[in-house]
Amino acid sequence: MIVTLKSGAKKSDVQAVVARVKKLGFTPQLSRGAERVVIGVIGEGNKAIAHKELFESMPQVEVVTPISKPYKVVSRVFKKTDTVIDVRGVPVGGKGIVIMAGPCSVDTRENVMVTAKELKKAGVQILRGGAFKPRTSPYAFQGLGEEALKYLAEARRVTGLPIITEVMDPRQVDLVERYADILQIGARNAQNYDLLREVGRTRKPAMLKRGMATTIEEWLMAAEYIMAKGNENVMLCERGIRTFETATRFTLDLNAVPVLKTLSHLPVLVDPSHGVGVRDYIVPMARAAIAAGADGIIIECHPNPAAALSDGHQAMLPTQMHDILKGLRKVAEAVGRTL
Amino acid sequence: MIVTLKSGAKKSDVQAVVARVKKLGFTPQLSRGAERVVIGVIGEGNKAIAHKELFESMPQVEVVTPISKPYKVVSRVFKKTDTVIDVRGVPVGGKGIVIMAGPCSVDTRENVMVTAKELKKAGVQILRGGAFKPRTSPYAFQGLGEEALKYLAEARRVTGLPIITEVMDPRQVDLVERYADILQIGARNAQNYDLLREVGRTRKPAMLKRGMATTIEEWLMAAEYIMAKGNENVMLCERGIRTFETATRFTLDLNAVPVLKTLSHLPVLVDPSHGVGVRDYIVPMARAAIAAGADGIIIECHPNPAAALSDGHQAMLPTQMHDILKGLRKVAEAVGRTL
Amino acid sequence: MIVTLKSGAKKSDVQAVVARVKKLGFTPQLSRGAERVVIGVIGEGNKAIAHKELFESMPQVEVVTPISKPYKVVSRVFKKTDTVIDVRGVPVGGKGIVIMAGPCSVDTRENVMVTAKELKKAGVQILRGGAFKPRTSPYAFQGLGEEALKYLAEARRVTGLPIITEVMDPRQVDLVERYADILQIGARNAQNYDLLREVGRTRKPAMLKRGMATTIEEWLMAAEYIMAKGNENVMLCERGIRTFETATRFTLDLNAVPVLKTLSHLPVLVDPSHGVGVRDYIVPMARAAIAAGADGIIIECHPNPAAALSDGHQAMLPTQMHDILKGLRKVAEAVGRTL
Amino acid sequence: MIVTLKSGAKKSDVQAVVARVKKLGFTPQLSRGAERVVIGVIGEGNKAIAHKELFESMPQVEVVTPISKPYKVVSRVFKKTDTVIDVRGVPVGGKGIVIMAGPCSVDTRENVMVTAKELKKAGVQILRGGAFKPRTSPYAFQGLGEEALKYLAEARRVTGLPIITEVMDPRQVDLVERYADILQIGARNAQNYDLLREVGRTRKPAMLKRGMATTIEEWLMAAEYIMAKGNENVMLCERGIRTFETATRFTLDLNAVPVLKTLSHLPVLVDPSHGVGVRDYIVPMARAAIAAGADGIIIECHPNPAAALSDGHQAMLPTQMHDILKGLRKVAEAVGRTL
Repeated sequence: MIVTLKSGAKKSDVQAVVARVKKLGFTPQLSRGAERVVIGVIGEGNKAIAHKELFESMPQVEVVTPISKPYKVVSRVFKKTDTVIDVRGVPVGGKGIVIMAGPCSVDTRENVMVTAKELKKAGVQILRGGAFKPRTSPYAFQGLGEEALKYLAEARRVTGLPIITEVMDPRQVDLVERYADILQIGARNAQNYDLLREVGRTRKPAMLKRGMATTIEEWLMAAEYIMAKGNENVMLCERGIRTFETATRFTLDLNAVPVLKTLSHLPVLVDPSHGVGVRDYIVPMARAAIAAGADGIIIECHPNPAAALSDGHQAMLPTQMHDILKGLRKVAEAVGRTL
Repeated sequence: MIVTLKSGAKKSDVQAVVARVKKLGFTPQLSRGAERVVIGVIGEGNKAIAHKELFESMPQVEVVTPISKPYKVVSRVFKKTDTVIDVRGVPVGGKGIVIMAGPCSVDTRENVMVTAKELKKAGVQILRGGAFKPRTSPYAFQGLGEEALKYLAEARRVTGLPIITEVMDPRQVDLVERYADILQIGARNAQNYDLLREVGRTRKPAMLKRGMATTIEEWLMAAEYIMAKGNENVMLCERGIRTFETATRFTLDLNAVPVLKTLSHLPVLVDPSHGVGVRDYIVPMARAAIAAGADGIIIECHPNPAAALSDGHQAMLPTQMHDILKGLRKVAEAVGRTL
Repeated sequence: MIVTLKSGAKKSDVQAVVARVKKLGFTPQLSRGAERVVIGVIGEGNKAIAHKELFESMPQVEVVTPISKPYKVVSRVFKKTDTVIDVRGVPVGGKGIVIMAGPCSVDTRENVMVTAKELKKAGVQILRGGAFKPRTSPYAFQGLGEEALKYLAEARRVTGLPIITEVMDPRQVDLVERYADILQIGARNAQNYDLLREVGRTRKPAMLKRGMATTIEEWLMAAEYIMAKGNENVMLCERGIRTFETATRFTLDLNAVPVLKTLSHLPVLVDPSHGVGVRDYIVPMARAAIAAGADGIIIECHPNPAAALSDGHQAMLPTQMHDILKGLRKVAEAVGRTL
Repeated sequence: MIVTLKSGAKKSDVQAVVARVKKLGFTPQLSRGAERVVIGVIGEGNKAIAHKELFESMPQVEVVTPISKPYKVVSRVFKKTDTVIDVRGVPVGGKGIVIMAGPCSVDTRENVMVTAKELKKAGVQILRGGAFKPRTSPYAFQGLGEEALKYLAEARRVTGLPIITEVMDPRQVDLVERYADILQIGARNAQNYDLLREVGRTRKPAMLKRGMATTIEEWLMAAEYIMAKGNENVMLCERGIRTFETATRFTLDLNAVPVLKTLSHLPVLVDPSHGVGVRDYIVPMARAAIAAGADGIIIECHPNPAAALSDGHQAMLPTQMHDILKGLRKVAEAVGRTL
């Protein structure tokens, strides 16, 4: 960590910073430039960074520059090899690309069953479906709750597909954990720390979506919240960030894929359905995600998109998934993966 | 609501949309342009908008354009006069500008008491202080919890200042409600709908901060979640959005002030401390907020910023507040308000 | 075009809008909803849109919603088939993916020659190199100017590679046109309309980069500036937009690729070097770009990146290009293209 | 400047960086942390920063952190006192707030004369008007050119008001310089370096608008381009940046005002008309700008907004300016300024 003092800092200002560095158990290293004094804070690992604010709040300090990253257990420095998470026998994060698909919201038992069977046939490995839905409007459909979880569990029993579903409230974690194979944390809750801690207390695989304005560093820190509670089965899912562009619903940030694979050992998935929000752009972006190095894709499907209770405009037909997977498989193989 | 069909839509495509409009109980109005067919969906109030997705998901539809706003009870159309919220005798949203101040995190009983007394003397009307803190790092100080609430309550007893503090978890609402005069919902929980609903079940004044990537419309919809549960005492607080600019910690979006005062009847506050994150810019932006029409300001203060457990770099000294209020008062009077 | 009046608009307000619609030669179509009056402006093609501001400026008007797009000749509605541009025998926009590579800035004759020969061997089809450089600092190296153009022309003579180079100033267009095979317009000049017009007067292929904050619609309008002057040889190049994320230099917006391929017939290229600005992320993003449907890639190369006069930190070695192309070729074939 | 090496850098990697530091004439200062080696580059003033890229391009380097700012003559470190620019007797940047107003585009001689007289009466000090217009569409009105300049000059002769108008093309600088008292550089040309250099060669006051995605640091560097050519009469104008928010046309970033007043000695103006693009929000934001510390405001006015050839929806009536100035004057006085 490097502490840069304001130009014109007095001798006593410098001494106060040096004293604080020593008091915290670190070694100060002074460097006097032409305009400014710079003080290195040297210690073991990234411990110094926890005290960043203590230096920022000193009036003589201009800026504090971290050298180490603020996260630990999610970091590739901490664990060099890729984490592979076992989801009822489906490995996520290994050589094989994982495809998750299903409806945005679970609406009827029949639709779930029809969709699940069709997806199974197409080669999809994990079934997604929303039971609790974070909707912008309090007057919109909010999800079927436990009833939806039961339908999903039935679809799993029949098809063998593991299921992923969103948990929104710390009080729901126990319930959702009983049904789901992966607990999804949505974009709006990406920094809902009480929910992250609660999911961290389980040992269920968790998929943490990126918030709409969450930096990659903050996102990894959110994953660190889950892992710090002992749950090591965390996968990350890019789903689009907020930018000025309105031609797509969000700006799917595929750059996050190689960045995350470099900084972290965790599996990285991509959700092109929410990222672009326009049906015609989903397949090209799913292909691009795999080419960029993603470990999996999550796609919205509905047997009758025009009657779906949410996000129908971006849903594919389950019967299209066979051809979509065929296309994705070619790209996966082109970058040395399987599907 | 206006449904624009894709160029080249067939007669049967048009009829299917018209049929759906009628089935939902609305009146369709067709308009054939040179390239495209446009169908108006006419009904009472803003009811049609709830069915927006049903039209978006039809393959022949290019775009659905709402004419009415999706929110109701927060809207100035619904209630023409400014809402004034009574916080233990302090009116928020009236002619008088309200100043809230206090530490980011409550750290010691003594610091809270010293701060509260100094702020009272300076003319600050409401005491703020964090008991539960949403921190980016799981290894950072997370707040003193109920202990902090007790210190705040004691400071209220001694000074008479009402208190505002953040609630992060739906399970904390009962506890925080027992102590606080205003329940604050932070930026990271701006779309944590379960928390919003829980706060909506109380009748305590609530201050809803804007999320870092929340549009003004989504923000009003989040306020609608609270009001839809019966809690009408909602105030909004602008605290900076995420943009590309790094000279300030966030981009405090003062444009939101006149926009909100036009669209809604709810009181609007501004938090320049978190919005800019640099001590020297806080006072100019507080003045600007009042000039833009804000109903109040919330500022971080700490008796010893260099030792604060969070955000010390942006804290003012309680002893500075007297002069700061003097400056703000002049601006308030210049725009026809009092302080 | 749809004109929505403010709620509470009087009869005379409505009549004034209707009168203006008629005076401009269009047909008005009234629609009275519960809260608001909506007036469709019906006419031939997208002519009405040119008068959008005339309606927006009327005080009784709340919002004007275009139905047609504001661009014409760049649109896929105007020309259904993909435009293929011939660059000295290299087709851009056809089935084959085009790779352009070379140094950010041309520095020495020898470096250009070494680079060009190596790139030719690797299968790169077009040589890039900066002669005039838009640098953030007036004190930084500004490019060698015509000397650099001469080196590039010599490299073309020896290797047969066509050359692309940036033109920054309308007064340079004649000079650069004499040497270059493609005139590049950089991100900072994406809406420099006098430069666009000047390039439009030539018949040289032009590559128009996206501005850092240019929407896709504005970008297509900028291309329309060039085409409106008669130059039909326009290719578009995505190079990253400004967002809040700092892990990459810009946010390369690959979503723009399928969006542009849908809206326009023009070839679309991607510049991952400037888009991400970090060497390790360039190859994954180049692969992703091709998978997303891009017609070509432009990559920075320098024989000695650590001594390059600009952007060395993101330059690949020319000797790496053979392997990079091998990887890109596999992805190209996976999506039905050749390389 | 601080060079941080990658974790795992070898002894020879460190030596290569040290050697380069010495060769460039600077003093290296090594600091070995637990994970990484950090090398301070110590030299006179901010000279080291010019070589930033030379270090960034070395493969063993993780990141280069500047300590000094990259700009010089625009900096408040370089010149401590506020720059006051004389515009035909009107001081810009002193204690008095300057109001500029006039039409977006000059359309008719009569409109300009009527507007100018009305504005003069209201106390406006400088007349604005567009002769060359940067329009998103090539089919929109592009400005009257020299004819407009003549009308503006006539209005100046009659009213005594100095005039400001935009210059878009380096080839127009001589012409516009003959008529205008201030040369305006628009947002789309904020990093059009050839235009900046050309304006730098004149000695006319220049107003440099911020680009839609220009950071404050890049903006100051653009001003440095003008000043580096010898033109010291530069004023800066905030006019809104691109963000995700769509309730306003741009996000007027008033935070830039205190940031610029701290970093630079140049006068700072604010353009609320383009910044928000909605008539009702202009006056509140103009007041806020003055409260934030701006030295002046520029507002669009047109005697018949509904017939204006551009941006009529955000134009005020000249006859409203008297009352607007009355309101702004009160805010100016509240923050110790005059108007």
